[in-house]
Amino acid sequence: MTAEPAAPFLAACRCEPVGRTPVWFMRQAGRSLPEYRALKGTRSILDVLTHPDLAAEITLQPVRRHRVDAAILFSDIIVPVWATGFGVDIVAGRGPVVERPLRTPADLERLRPLDPEADTGYVLETVRILATELPADVPLIGFAGAPFTVASYLVEGGPSRDFAKVKALMHADPGTWEALVDRLADMAIASLGAQVDAGADAVQLFDSWVGALSPKDYERFALPATRRVLDAVGALGVPTILFGVGTGELLGLMASCGPNVVGVDWRVPLDLARRRVGPGRAVQGNLDPGACLGPVEVALEEARDVLRRAGGAPGYVFNLGHGVLPETDPGVLSALVELVHAEGPAGLRS
Amino acid sequence: MTAEPAAPFLAACRCEPVGRTPVWFMRQAGRSLPEYRALKGTRSILDVLTHPDLAAEITLQPVRRHRVDAAILFSDIIVPVWATGFGVDIVAGRGPVVERPLRTPADLERLRPLDPEADTGYVLETVRILATELPADVPLIGFAGAPFTVASYLVEGGPSRDFAKVKALMHADPGTWEALVDRLADMAIASLGAQVDAGADAVQLFDSWVGALSPKDYERFALPATRRVLDAVGALGVPTILFGVGTGELLGLMASCGPNVVGVDWRVPLDLARRRVGPGRAVQGNLDPGACLGPVEVALEEARDVLRRAGGAPGYVFNLGHGVLPETDPGVLSALVELVHAEGPAGLRS
Repeated sequence: MTAEPAAPFLAACRCEPVGRTPVWFMRQAGRSLPEYRALKGTRSILDVLTHPDLAAEITLQPVRRHRVDAAILFSDIIVPVWATGFGVDIVAGRGPVVERPLRTPADLERLRPLDPEADTGYVLETVRILATELPADVPLIGFAGAPFTVASYLVEGGPSRDFAKVKALMHADPGTWEALVDRLADMAIASLGAQVDAGADAVQLFDSWVGALSPKDYERFALPATRRVLDAVGALGVPTILFGVGTGELLGLMASCGPNVVGVDWRVPLDLARRRVGPGRAVQGNLDPGACLGPVEVALEEARDVLRRAGGAPGYVFNLGHGVLPETDPGVLSALVELVHAEGPAGLRS
Repeated sequence: MTAEPAAPFLAACRCEPVGRTPVWFMRQAGRSLPEYRALKGTRSILDVLTHPDLAAEITLQPVRRHRVDAAILFSDIIVPVWATGFGVDIVAGRGPVVERPLRTPADLERLRPLDPEADTGYVLETVRILATELPADVPLIGFAGAPFTVASYLVEGGPSRDFAKVKALMHADPGTWEALVDRLADMAIASLGAQVDAGADAVQLFDSWVGALSPKDYERFALPATRRVLDAVGALGVPTILFGVGTGELLGLMASCGPNVVGVDWRVPLDLARRRVGPGRAVQGNLDPGACLGPVEVALEEARDVLRRAGGAPGYVFNLGHGVLPETDPGVLSALVELVHAEGPAGLRS
């Protein structure tokens, strides 16, 4: 036992009292920062994230600039499938694009298990650098894509609006779908376990697009593989966060997958979201990234509303409801961090 | 007064008892039908819908094939702005694309008021043809885009995932945003009024993308203009439907805009949606279009669940939660119509 207090971010994830509300931003490292654009130059994302020195530096940039309470590894949810030889590329302005989408049982053979050290050693090296370079009170968040969301890229062949091919596969060939998300769950478990071994202090499972499913389909087609990942990673002793967009009706089911924290987008008021998540779990979010695109006063006013709805109760991590938009003025993010720290849960200071 | 019973669709919109649950499908006319593809050939959508004989025939095709309880005018929500000379095109596989997006107060001058007969006489001629050719118990639904959703295309320049430019404009220059949705409300009122005069029996206001807003932003930036359209059109004596996707948290606010019917996507179970909409209004939806892409048994099973949740109470129109996906087997839609008619509200037969 140590007398050192836990970092506010880790304490909040575990619903413990905190001296200040912790804050970080999804996609805080990346296009919104001029120092990122300067460092990246004309390199591709995949090129940058395979260079641990660059990836670590990019991870650190927003910690220095914004004084956020957690760092998130600079990587991509598509890295494990890419690194194991499934043909996928990240196309600027579009996202992950798959050469030959996965549509048949035979295509499953093209997905091989992940050996984290052999396949993605650069990711783990980045984690190791960050474990030594980050300030002691700024934990590192590792991450993976949740099985549904990674599967959606592999099956659709790229970003999708209606997920027609995913849903056609689910309903027409549920056995292949289940085998697919099972393999992706194994890859996420391997990747997250290795990140934790290398020094990650918490992990976030990104199920960004799962809000496309009805609650019934979520329960059948996404929940079991998601729970398996969270069970395995939770057993490693680090807090887990499960995040998705458009998941208002899924929050209770997502909580039942066992994460410490459920991410909430901006569509559901935070107090309502917390009721749906239920007791014993923290929530994270829920400022609209679009509210950061106007004058700073608008963003601050919206953030105050989020903080009011958080109500000063333990178990809240301030964040946007989705990633920072590339057009965002970094000054707005820094001002948000100041506000959240200043207007923290005064009644709960430890 | 006449002894003739109202068409089931119109009765359901008004929460009156019906002999069978009425059913129609958003985007029932169009790409999923081989007879549509044969008739359209290589013509563009805008070419087809400016020819009343073709547009009327396409509107009738799904009525003949599926025996649905309502026809929806074959047109597009972008027609009024296109017809008044705002540079916009419908790009196959992408949607409406705007040459010079609307971003500044000066750009507002490029939006001129709609004169329905002079600018869109072909739409009204299509309505007139359909008013004589449709069976007496199959009403014609006219439609318009709601101000928010039309504005989103004009400001973004095309379909968007994050509506960053819309939100930036709303927050940075609310006056210009409000002037924009006000002009679009006037255009919708003019267009819908003329469609009703020409013979439309009901109207649907498509606010497809408004689910991108938080309840607070909906209330400020979308609700007032939407309510103005529904007030004006409701006064004409035809039922009104307000539809959007991803609107789980907005259903109560949408109901407060005054439509007879609130559309519900597939993310919210129908019984829960009805509670959020509140008493005195009908609901329409909420089968996942993606559930129609697998075996017919899956679609029928999902439809039975929707009907169970509808509970046989008055005020329900069966539909998908969004438009028919192009890949849909038309046989699945016909089977759904049969099921819905066969498993109608037996206890309520008049």
